[in-house]
Amino acid sequence: MRSININTNARDELIDITAKVRELVPADMKNGICHVFCMHTTAGITVNENCDPDVKHDLIYQLDKLVEWNNPAFKHFEGNSAAHLKASLMGFSLSIPVRDGALMLGRWQGIYFCEFDGPRSRSLSVQFMVTQ
Amino acid sequence: MRSININTNARDELIDITAKVRELVPADMKNGICHVFCMHTTAGITVNENCDPDVKHDLIYQLDKLVEWNNPAFKHFEGNSAAHLKASLMGFSLSIPVRDGALMLGRWQGIYFCEFDGPRSRSLSVQFMVTQ
Amino acid sequence: MRSININTNARDELIDITAKVRELVPADMKNGICHVFCMHTTAGITVNENCDPDVKHDLIYQLDKLVEWNNPAFKHFEGNSAAHLKASLMGFSLSIPVRDGALMLGRWQGIYFCEFDGPRSRSLSVQFMVTQ
Repeated sequence: MRSININTNARDELIDITAKVRELVPADMKNGICHVFCMHTTAGITVNENCDPDVKHDLIYQLDKLVEWNNPAFKHFEGNSAAHLKASLMGFSLSIPVRDGALMLGRWQGIYFCEFDGPRSRSLSVQFMVTQ
Repeated sequence: MRSININTNARDELIDITAKVRELVPADMKNGICHVFCMHTTAGITVNENCDPDVKHDLIYQLDKLVEWNNPAFKHFEGNSAAHLKASLMGFSLSIPVRDGALMLGRWQGIYFCEFDGPRSRSLSVQFMVTQ
Repeated sequence: MRSININTNARDELIDITAKVRELVPADMKNGICHVFCMHTTAGITVNENCDPDVKHDLIYQLDKLVEWNNPAFKHFEGNSAAHLKASLMGFSLSIPVRDGALMLGRWQGIYFCEFDGPRSRSLSVQFMVTQ
């Protein structure tokens, strides 16, 4: 069982973890699946464009517009219900193909950790399975 | 192949199924992945906080605000298109790490079945895979 | 490692790929998991109703209402930030149970490729794992 630890720096932040996941692929693995799991409830994982940093801005902006932080109808005492929903919208588990010993991502794909209630210290579990 | 059956009680309802999933982990499994799959199209699965029940209220409230039930633009004759989209937003498949014979969830994480068109009888498939 | 190639025909389009996934199940596989991964950042994968085509219309309509295409606050130079977010909302990886040699989908479930920035040529990776 491998893990990735991240310190986030803002309330909402998308952090490219592709390189960190890539270096965990076992040296003896040929074909398989890499499974990443987020151990939290106010942060998630997604795949998105690894090139123009404005994509990160636009995703954070639009999610914040959809799920506004200060909604008086929210009951949860911690005041971070928006972060809980944003995390569920992005998802907590992601499985990525491994081919010929390397993550098989599309040309523009990066793996992003999605912080929605930072800054915090966060952990991800990373596992590998051999496929047929 | 294992399964979990649930009877839901309201149109929108988040049900904590963590204990039900936990007891399905095979006695002889050490490290692996638990894969939960929802067999429906108007219900989904997510992970979220297992502590304050107000989080459930806020998630249901906000999803209902985002995807209103009675939208005259919806064409689907059953009138439950909102439930179809909410289910897709939460997702239908979830993979959770198993470590040393137990589900490896974060401290505040619970696994939730998300009913969006209840009350109904629902089924989930649960599978286990050994990892490297 | 198997793959599915699709040519899409519209900016937003849900395409039922259930039959294409089904025929990739290995002849000698009994119980396992089928893992589908979308190799792009402006298209995703989901499960939804395979029966009434109006469900597809309603999902596309509602997602477009949630994430409007022409938002002047978007910075990404390509102008397709809405497609990036819609793809993240649907998700990029999907795992489906295989039982007795066949995909174990619910009665009304179909697997949908979700195009949000078409028309384009798209690829999905499909893998299979044996389960306990």
